[in-house]
Parts: sequence; structure tokens; C-alpha cells
Amino acid sequence: MQRIDAYWRAANYLSVGQIYLRDNPLLTEPLKPEHIKPRLLGHWGTTPGLNFTFAHLNRIIAEREQEMIYIAGPGHGGPAAVAHAWLEGSYSEKYPEISQDAAGMRRLFRQFSFPGGIPSHVAPETPGSIHEGGELGYSLAHAYGAAFDNPRLVVACVIGDGEAETGPLAASWHSNKFLDPFRDGVVLPILHLNGYKIANPAVLARIPEDELIKLMEGYGYHPHIVGPSHEEMADTLDTVFDQIASYKDGRSARLPMIILRTPKGWTGPREVDGLPVEGTWRAHQVPLSGIQDNPEHLAMLEDWLRSYRPEELFDEEGRPVPALLQTVPEGPLRMSASPHANGGELLAPLTLPDFRDYAVEVKTPAAQSTEPTRVLGVFLRDVIAANPHTFRLMGPDETASNRLQAVFDTTDRAWNAEIKPTDEHLAAGGRVMEVLSEHLCQGWLEGYLLTGRHGLFNCYEAFIHIIDAMFNQHAKWLETAKKIAWRRPVASLNYLLSSHVWRQDHNGFSHQDPGFLDVVANKKAEVVRVYLPPDANTLLSVGDHCLRSQDYVNVIVAGKQPVLDLFTMDEAIAHNTRGLGILPWASTDQGLEPDVVLACAGDVPTLETLAAAALLREHLPELKVRVVNVVDLMRLQPPSEHPHGMPDAEFDTLFTTDKPVIFNFHGYPWLIHRLTYRRRGHANLHVRGYKEEGTTTTPFDMAMLNDIDRYHLVMDVIDRVPGLGTTAAHLRQQMSDVRLQARAYTREHGEDPAEIRNWSWG
Amino acid sequence: MQRIDAYWRAANYLSVGQIYLRDNPLLTEPLKPEHIKPRLLGHWGTTPGLNFTFAHLNRIIAEREQEMIYIAGPGHGGPAAVAHAWLEGSYSEKYPEISQDAAGMRRLFRQFSFPGGIPSHVAPETPGSIHEGGELGYSLAHAYGAAFDNPRLVVACVIGDGEAETGPLAASWHSNKFLDPFRDGVVLPILHLNGYKIANPAVLARIPEDELIKLMEGYGYHPHIVGPSHEEMADTLDTVFDQIASYKDGRSARLPMIILRTPKGWTGPREVDGLPVEGTWRAHQVPLSGIQDNPEHLAMLEDWLRSYRPEELFDEEGRPVPALLQTVPEGPLRMSASPHANGGELLAPLTLPDFRDYAVEVKTPAAQSTEPTRVLGVFLRDVIAANPHTFRLMGPDETASNRLQAVFDTTDRAWNAEIKPTDEHLAAGGRVMEVLSEHLCQGWLEGYLLTGRHGLFNCYEAFIHIIDAMFNQHAKWLETAKKIAWRRPVASLNYLLSSHVWRQDHNGFSHQDPGFLDVVANKKAEVVRVYLPPDANTLLSVGDHCLRSQDYVNVIVAGKQPVLDLFTMDEAIAHNTRGLGILPWASTDQGLEPDVVLACAGDVPTLETLAAAALLREHLPELKVRVVNVVDLMRLQPPSEHPHGMPDAEFDTLFTTDKPVIFNFHGYPWLIHRLTYRRRGHANLHVRGYKEEGTTTTPFDMAMLNDIDRYHLVMDVIDRVPGLGTTAAHLRQQMSDVRLQARAYTREHGEDPAEIRNWSWG
Repeated sequence: MQRIDAYWRAANYLSVGQIYLRDNPLLTEPLKPEHIKPRLLGHWGTTPGLNFTFAHLNRIIAEREQEMIYIAGPGHGGPAAVAHAWLEGSYSEKYPEISQDAAGMRRLFRQFSFPGGIPSHVAPETPGSIHEGGELGYSLAHAYGAAFDNPRLVVACVIGDGEAETGPLAASWHSNKFLDPFRDGVVLPILHLNGYKIANPAVLARIPEDELIKLMEGYGYHPHIVGPSHEEMADTLDTVFDQIASYKDGRSARLPMIILRTPKGWTGPREVDGLPVEGTWRAHQVPLSGIQDNPEHLAMLEDWLRSYRPEELFDEEGRPVPALLQTVPEGPLRMSASPHANGGELLAPLTLPDFRDYAVEVKTPAAQSTEPTRVLGVFLRDVIAANPHTFRLMGPDETASNRLQAVFDTTDRAWNAEIKPTDEHLAAGGRVMEVLSEHLCQGWLEGYLLTGRHGLFNCYEAFIHIIDAMFNQHAKWLETAKKIAWRRPVASLNYLLSSHVWRQDHNGFSHQDPGFLDVVANKKAEVVRVYLPPDANTLLSVGDHCLRSQDYVNVIVAGKQPVLDLFTMDEAIAHNTRGLGILPWASTDQGLEPDVVLACAGDVPTLETLAAAALLREHLPELKVRVVNVVDLMRLQPPSEHPHGMPDAEFDTLFTTDKPVIFNFHGYPWLIHRLTYRRRGHANLHVRGYKEEGTTTTPFDMAMLNDIDRYHLVMDVIDRVPGLGTTAAHLRQQMSDVRLQARAYTREHGEDPAEIRNWSWG
Repeated sequence: MQRIDAYWRAANYLSVGQIYLRDNPLLTEPLKPEHIKPRLLGHWGTTPGLNFTFAHLNRIIAEREQEMIYIAGPGHGGPAAVAHAWLEGSYSEKYPEISQDAAGMRRLFRQFSFPGGIPSHVAPETPGSIHEGGELGYSLAHAYGAAFDNPRLVVACVIGDGEAETGPLAASWHSNKFLDPFRDGVVLPILHLNGYKIANPAVLARIPEDELIKLMEGYGYHPHIVGPSHEEMADTLDTVFDQIASYKDGRSARLPMIILRTPKGWTGPREVDGLPVEGTWRAHQVPLSGIQDNPEHLAMLEDWLRSYRPEELFDEEGRPVPALLQTVPEGPLRMSASPHANGGELLAPLTLPDFRDYAVEVKTPAAQSTEPTRVLGVFLRDVIAANPHTFRLMGPDETASNRLQAVFDTTDRAWNAEIKPTDEHLAAGGRVMEVLSEHLCQGWLEGYLLTGRHGLFNCYEAFIHIIDAMFNQHAKWLETAKKIAWRRPVASLNYLLSSHVWRQDHNGFSHQDPGFLDVVANKKAEVVRVYLPPDANTLLSVGDHCLRSQDYVNVIVAGKQPVLDLFTMDEAIAHNTRGLGILPWASTDQGLEPDVVLACAGDVPTLETLAAAALLREHLPELKVRVVNVVDLMRLQPPSEHPHGMPDAEFDTLFTTDKPVIFNFHGYPWLIHRLTYRRRGHANLHVRGYKEEGTTTTPFDMAMLNDIDRYHLVMDVIDRVPGLGTTAAHLRQQMSDVRLQARAYTREHGEDPAEIRNWSWG
């Protein structure tokens, strides 16, 4: 116990040192103003509690040779994770200049929250972390994601009492219903009640204890309450890990969890300037400030640092004394060195069946229809079968709705709660994770990927906005991790957005929003990819490509409703490789300069564009129309903006520099302008897309409401190509009339006219 | 009880009729294929349970003259809410053509989920609703929002067991800690366990009942379990409303809640094509399909409809029989006619102090600094004092962090849990709502606004993305509600985004994201407004303007750190009224055509732009520089795109059509291109903004990392204005050197150089 306490004091000392000191790290001389950083940044409040749990978990790891990783929900407590990694030696292994001696300790202190140094939070730069904790709410979902398919792993997850108020965290407790004790690892939630957030008490710290216990039991856990005492923590951990062993071998169905009550800012200043600090919200960030100009505060800081008795903890060279290091586990058992927390070290490529084997046969383009996601589902079925421990499919109760149900021929939905006879495809150990929480799907998948596995998240397009903020955080993690040499690449986070805006006519306006692409496009080009395959074969090829990629966020938008098959598989591969290209069979420019370019991206806009091209071919046969389909949206940008960007010369050849381009886009039209505004022909670009019109209606009425329909595209062409004459003027009027007739038909009959429903290129 | 059952059967009959029938509404003749809609859209599964609770709550309302509104979390059950409104007569009041007779019933059925008709979900079109339930998760937060400051109101909130899995809903249970029994109304949560989602069982329906009870007790409620029985429901409601009375007068601290277990698709087909339907996930949407071509299914549908014995429920003219209507409450006590559910009917303008009285005195522009949000906080303090029952300030534990703490001089944080002596500003009935959940802040505020009150949500800028999806849904609600004549305007939803990207240098990369503006800009121009006031006085004036507005979403981005005061209050008002304008004192074009325009939007970009203008004035005095500041971002669009849009002629006069414009923007730079791509001078526009570079560093280093700093702006000008000669070339080199020196200084000293920290125009 003394060794644990010494380790804890060392970690606390190193934490306070990081927040305050730029010099004199071992206090070999009295503290002076010039030893103090000019800007004091960091979060002390949560730090001693994080250090306390670290210290105690290390004993368990050593005693039981337990594989464990540590997730710090209060990731603001960056000093704790860094201190721990330095004590365990892994910090110096990753960053040799931060050596385990006085010079290294000085650099360790100085770099923290310092320009050119390291962030104030647990971050990708921190060894042993898969979780930043900057935006709160995701620690427990990340922990479960890490535990899936890791049967020997325990994920210790500290949850701050502030974070516990968030929605995603509140939902995450129920993740235990999706865990398989035999196939998966275990999550040990440690709810850290230090009582306060930034400026307020925390809800769970202020409800009666019996209510809190019931809440945790209601979530399906066996709670253990621990006060600020080494003995209590050690005894409880012994009990808890015995219970975990019972859970793992099936003797108990309940996972334990710990409620740890400590003062906020524990061991820090009790009172500053006459106001209580330890145990209050005032300990949240930097309890002592204005130190350079306030000798009293300076003295208090020195007393505080010396209260940890650094002279007992570090030798004259600044190295941790041997007794301290005895409590540290060996090699990869160190939580700061676990390969699970640098998942790329464990990543193995998926065993992928040949996607060409799943191709739809296409003899004539645009003659027959297929449901693209249904075809992809068959491919995914075999991906799952071939990778029974390293691939999971996530979805908020929408896998079948999105028509990926072939996967249930080979696996089930993960479920570790009651199963009734009428249920289908539910089983512990299922590879499909369905819960009505996009937050959980996203959080689980992130945890799963960051620990070295693969997956795909299928979701209704509109509701993927629910995890905008989580996407942002993950993208930022990837952006940073890519720059860190020792962080190995992880599998990409793949989204399949189906049930999209143009086919949510039955659910109506609330289900219609294609704007996730705009959120994605804001992140760094190095990490984001967007694909809009227009048919089944292009979807298969894109899907295969994304599952092989690393360190990206891939967004695939693809419909579940029947769409015309456009490409043979060979053509699909070639088209996807280019990322965009002319559809020669739909074009009438015969390789010459066209009069107009009809561009399109997305399955429904492509269908309408083709139908418009057919109308133009029939009614204005002399007009030279070029049809261009875009699969890889980032090709539209210049190469200076995105690695997939198309050189200007190629872009100009394809789209011309002076002819009208009518671009029919799946999403909000402005995104196309944003991607192309630097192009020479941009002034001639006219984009149609979703303009926030919709309700419960028919598919074609949805297209008409937003002017992306075939008839309106023909009108757009006539309006923009000069000198087309009276035939065109008549055609324009005819198109306008046909639209009105189509609308009237729909309102009378409740469905689209047969010529719309059954249209094909023919 | 018979009357309740009859009412329930009538509502069920009307619900099935809406989903299936286009004709023969009273089954006066045998059902034929031509009576059936061609596309069958709607969600049956949840509907009978919604009708059941409606029917029983009506008895309570009538018996106790209880003001009540009904929130249907499973808003997909649109037929239920519509049936209820029709039976209560309010549907015909709002839509006279849908009369309470056979002809009206035929139209009622036909319009449902039909082109030109009404949506399939509870929607703004539905009388009595403030909650769509399209995107699940927000019912309980909306319910609490409606209950705040409505002491006589009970909000009955049906929560689907699917929805209960979402994060926002899971967090919402704890809203009871923020409710004041005397000042506020009451929420009655009814957790509807019908067991299944789209294709899966629901978690809460499959955990042991004792666990579920503990969970609800742990959330602080007194749970009551009810099976599918009129007697049980009636008895329980009597008990529950007695308990509510005890809560209201302080005899009990616990609110009751109901767990209602019914079969999914209750009273619908038991089995279809040999597969069980009632009580399974197969009842989720349309239990019988392909009816037009399947005589057996047609016969089953007729049997199903006749099982409700319509001949007992409706007279020959199709009117509900008098016995049915006896159960319906009177006038505004009808839940479908409650003014609380059409909040604009109750909306009274805020009593606003004169914002001019809070002005910062500005003798010389840009000479002294003020923290804008701190000044706004004083104004908000007096807004709260003057409107003690109709205004609330929401924030995720950030009100003081965002420096609005003056509000605590007049009020407290709402808190109905334990209070300790060291706590400050916590009290039941406080007007500031702080919980570490952006979802709750947003959901509460939406419920509060939609029931006719006012509010403001202050939030860290980056984390407002957490509620992107909720914003989308609320904006869509407003977009639709604006078109509905009987929906009266409600107060705008006001966001104050502070602790923004340029001043999150201490928290680092995870806290830096200005992309909410891009999400907002995707919604209809009719409902979105974005303001970037650059100083305290412009913020005051914008804040006053937003609090007076209706039916918008107003986004205000304003810093909490000191920024230079630029405008006297009179100037600020004039500047905001124009929305953008020249800063003459910072410009050197003397009213003539400039050589270059330096445009800016946002406080930090404006500061850097002014500093760049000062450098240019000093070093290139002959260069004619015009400085333009933009407050109202939507002014940049043409009037065809946004009501605030500026005519091209004015835009051209301000920005020129041929001179370089260096636009220094607060957010991602592409948004400015998107808003201006139709402008004549767009090709000359060069935008600087946040390009996803950041870490824990100093404020000026953040600016330099993203090239929005003064030195880089000077370099941009020199690169883009032709013919500046060797002086300029030297200056460019000097600027480049100064940047490197600034960076080096920062890395050495840990803070920005004094000339940056202390810079002012003077």
C-alpha cells in the first residue's frame, strides 16, 4: 500500500509540475517566479483521482497479469496520463528527448500546454490513449468498442460525474446487453464522483446514495462504492476482479462497477484567498493563479509540491526510485504501452472475398434495376464470415431496413438479454450491432477501430447528423495521429448512408437532410473521402475500396431502392478509379465539344439526369449533350485542396470552360460550388440539389419539389444553351406542362405516373 | 370504462382508415381494391398504444379539469394524433374541409401520407403537437421544457421503448432535478414498452422487471407498471394524479411515472401469411400489404376494421356518436386544442431594458478593450429580472465560463437536488438552466419556446455540433410551421456561441470547430440568421434584436476574451442595421475606389484585419485600403437567396468588382465563397479562415497556424495588389520574418509577444 501511495504521490507531483513549472523540476532550489509558466493551463480537479485509479489498477495488472487499457473520460486531466506514461517509461520510449531523468522531467513539465509542446488534454500524442475526452460523453462507448472481440482485455473506464450527465454516456451504460462474456472482453466502469463540473455540482453526486445504487443496478451492474482511501480501493478492486472472473466464466451475469467518491482537486490547496478550493468547483482548472506576482501563492505552490515528498520519489538524477518502479507492470502490460491503445500495431487487413463475384450482370446500361445495398449486403455477409473476430457492422436498428439483411444468413444481431421464440437473428456473439442510438454505434465503432479492428456503420442519411460532433472529434484524432510517428494507421471509419433524402418520401421532411457531407468536407482533406456510387456495381467496388483503406473517414451514400444498373463490373471499376467520367452511351457529343454538360452525383440525381438526356436526345437530337457522372466527390476539387483533386486541365477537358454545366447533385447544391469555385468554368456551373423542400409524398414529387427532376433539367438546359430556337421553346413549355400533369396525377392517384415508375433508358 | 373503450376503438378505427383507405370510410359497402391507397405508408405498431393513453388521459382531464398536453415520443404514430384531433373537433376547427362527418372522414383518410396531403408523422400540421418525433430522442426534454414555468400544466409524455435507447432520452430522465414543484408544471413520463423497434426487440423491454423498476427509481421516479387493460390503466392514472397533487403541494418529492406494457400493433392482425404480427416487430409499419392484389389480405383488412364496430361509433352521417364525445374535454382543455401546444397564442413580448443603457463608452475606436459577453451578461441579468416567468438562460455548465455571470446577481441556477454550504447560486426556481448536456439544453429550450416563452442558449462554439441534428429538426419545424396559418409565431431560438475557435487555444484542437454556421446555412433562409458582432456594443444591439424576433434561429458568435471596442452605441446600431459596412477610420481610401478591400467577420479576424490595416497605413501609406466589417453574415448573399441579402449594386459598390478582396473570416473559409459565388467580384475574393489547424498554444499562434494573422494578411495584400514595387517586396519579407520571430518568441516564452498582446489602433 505504501508503494501505491508513493506511486500516486509521484504521479500527482508530476501532474502539478506539468501545470506550473518551466524549470526547477525537482525543487532542488526554492521556487522562484521565473520557474513558473507565464500562462497556467490545465485541469487539476480531475487529475488526482485519475492518478489514484491508475496506481491501484497497476497492482491488479501486476498481480493478475491482466491485459488492461485505461480510458480517461475526464480527458481534460492530461497531466495524469502523461505522468503515468513517463513513470512507466513508455513516454521516454516514444519521445526519447523526454528522458526519465531531471532533464527529461524539465522538458516534460515545460512542454505541457506550451506552444510547440503537447496539448493540455489526453490526446493522440499521449501514449496509452485511444480517447481524448475533449468533448465529453463517449468514454464508455469507446470502452465497450475496445472490449468487443478482445476476450482477454479489461477496459478500465473512468467516467467523470460531469460527463455522466451527457446523453451519449447515459445511453452507454446499457452496452452491457451487447457484450458476450466469452467472445468479448470486459469493461470496468469507474464513476468518479468528485462532485463538481466547471462551476456546478454534478447531478449524480447529489442524488441520494440509494438512488444512485438503484440506478447502477437498473443499468445492470453490481455497484461498489469506494471513498478516498487506499485500503477501500484496493479491497474493492480485489473483489471486483474476482467478480469479473466469475462473469468471464459464466458464473455471474452481472458486471461490477465502481463509484469512486473523492474530493475534487484532492491533495491540492484546501483554501486559497480565504475561499475553499479542494473539494469544490474552484479546483476544476488551476487552483492557484497569479503566482508570478503573488509571493503567497508561490509559497503555497511550493508547499503543495513538497507535500508529495519528491525527495523520496526521485533520486538525485531525477529518476523514479526503484521502489516506485516495482509497482509498474512489464512491457506491453503497461497501460501506457498496450498495443490495444495503438491499434495499428495489431491491425491485420481484412480477408476480403472478390467483390467482382457479387457483380450484377449488366448487358445494356440503364435497362434493368437493382437495389444496390441489397447486393452489398451479400458481399458484407461474406466479409463477416471470412473475418469472424475483426469486423463488425453497426446500425441503429436499420440494417434490414437498409436492405443489408443477407448478413443475417451468416450471423446474428449481438444480444445478451432475454430472447423470445418469435425473435429472429438475435444471439450473444452476433456480428451485427443494432441499438437505437447513433451515438452508441459511432462510439462502439470508434473504440473498435482504434484498437485495431474493422467495421462499417450503416445509417439513415438524415440521422447521421446525430453524431456530427463525434465525427468531428474522430476526424481530429485521425488528423493528429497521422502526424505522430509511433501511431500506426488504423482502419478507416466507414459510413454507409442509405434511406437517403430522395427516398424518405414516406417518412417525410424530418427524415430528409443530406448535409452530413458538408460537415465532412470541413475536415482535413487528408482524412475525408466521399463516394456517391450510382448503381450496384459501383457500390460494390467502392465498398471494397473503403474496407481496404486506412486512417480515413469514408462516407458512402447509396440507395436501398431499385436503381438502374449502369455499369458492368469492369466499367464500374474503371469509373471508380477515375472517380468521375463521361457516360458515352448517354451522351450525344460523340467525343466532340458538347453544347451542354449534364453532370450528376448520387443515384436519384443520376437517374433524373439520364432521363433528361433521353428527352433531349429525342426532342433536340441536334444538341450535343455530354453526361458526366461523379462518384468520388473530392475529385471536383483542385489537387492543391485534396489528394484526390483533379488537375485543372483534366477538369476543363471534361466539363469545358465555357459551356453550361447543369450539375444534378444528391445533397445541398452549395457543396458543389464550394468544391469547384476555383475552376475556370465555374461561372457556367448551375447546380440543382436538395433545397430543403419535402414532405410525405411520392419519390418523383420529391424530385419535382426540389427541381432536380428530368423535366426541370431539360428546362434548365434550354434556359442556358443559347440559340436553340422555337423547337426548344416549345419543348420547354411542354416540360413545364408535363410537370404540372405529373403533380396532378400524383395528387389524384397517390403514386407516380407509370412512365416515371417504369422508366428506363430503353 | 365502456366509453373509454369506445373512444379507443374509434381512434383505432380512424387510424387504420388513415393508413389504408382512400374511399368507403364508413365501410358502408364491402371493401374493394379501389378503396385502398396504392402506396401504404404509416406506422401502425405504436398507434394503438398512443390511442389508449389519449383515451384514458381524457377522462382525467375531464374529471379534474386538468390542463394537459400530450407529447408522442413515437411521433411516427401520426394517425393516432390526427384521429384524436378529429374526434375532439379541433381538426375540423383548424381545417374546416376535414369536417366531422363522412365526407370529412373520407378526406381525413385520403390526405394521410398522400401527395398534397399531410405527413405520416405527428408534425406541425397536427393540432395539439409541439413534437414531431421524426428523429427520436427528444420527447422527454421537450416535455420538461414545456412544463417549466407552467405551474398548472401536466405534460403527458409517451416515450417509445426504441426512443428510450437514445442518448438524449436517457439523459432526459434526470430533468426532474431541475423542476420546481411550485413554479413549474409536472411531466408524466409514460414509458411505452411494446417490445420492439423496426426489426429488433427494445432493450428496456427485455431486462428483468426488477431491474427496470430500479432504473426508474434510480432516475428519481415512482414507477407504476400497467398491462394492456383499461382497468389497470384507469386505476393507475387515478393513483398517479393523486401523487402529482402530492408533489405539487410539497407532500412528496417524487414524481410518478408509468411503464405501459402492450403488444406492438395491439388489436391489429394476429398473424399474416402464417407469421405472427401483433406483438412482434412485424407490426411496426403496415401489417397487411399488397392488399390490392391479395383478396385474402383485403378480407383481413375489412375484418380488422370491422372489429372496432364502427357502426356503434359513428352515426349514419359519419359523425361520432354522442356517447363518444362525452369523454372529450371542453374547449382549450382538449389536448388537441391546448394553447400550450400552439405557443404563439400565449406568446407575449419580453419586457426588455434599453440595451443602450449598457453600452461601453467608446471615445476612440479600437483604443480600449472589453469582454463582450461580460457586458451582455449585465443586460441579460436585467432581462431575467424583468421577465421572471417567461425567459430562461440555458447552458451546459458554461454560463460563468462564457462570462455571463452577472445574471447570478439576480437569479440562481435551477437545482432541485441536494445543496451544500459551499455551493453558490443554486436554488429551485433559478432562471439559469445548467446541465452538462447540450441535448438537454436544446431540448428544454425548444419545449419552452414552442409553448410560448423566450430563451437563449449559451454554448462553447465547438460543442454546439452536438445538437446539429436537433437544430435541423427544429429549423424544419419552423420552416413548416410558418406555412400553417393557425400556427402562431413563436420566439426565436437564440444561440450565443462563445469560447470560440480562436480562443480555445488553452483547450486545444478538440475544442476548435466553427462549422455550426455551415450546418445552419443549409436550412431555409426564411428561418436562419447569423451574426458575428465584433465588439461589446454591436453584441448588445444584436442581442436585443434577436430577443425581439420570432420564428427564427439566430446564431450569435461572440468572444468572451477582451476585444477592442470599435463602435459607439449609435455607430453600433447603425452598423448592425446595415449588417455590414466600411470602418472609415481604419480605411485609407477616403471615399474613393480602393486598391484593396480588407473584409472581416468575427471578433478575432476583425482585430487582425485592423492590425493589418495599421501596418499597411504605416508601411505603404500610398495604398488605398478599405476595411469592411460584416456583422450579419446573410447580407453577403443576393436578395434572391436570403431576405437579408444585399443587392448586387450595393455589394459591388462596397467590395468593388475588380479589386482584390482579402476576407478574414471567423469560420471555415468556404462558407464565404458559398455565400458570395454569385457576386461579380467573386473571382477576386480571397478568404482566410479556420483551416483545421490548432493545438494548445497561444492566441496569436492559433491565428498564425491558420494564416489569419495580421502579418499574413499584409502578405496577402502584397501578393494580390499589382505593381506595388520594391518597398512592398521588402515589407513582405519583413512580415514573413516577423511571423517566424513571433513563433520563436512564443515557443521560448510561452506567451505572445507584448506588442501583440497590447496592440491597439491608437
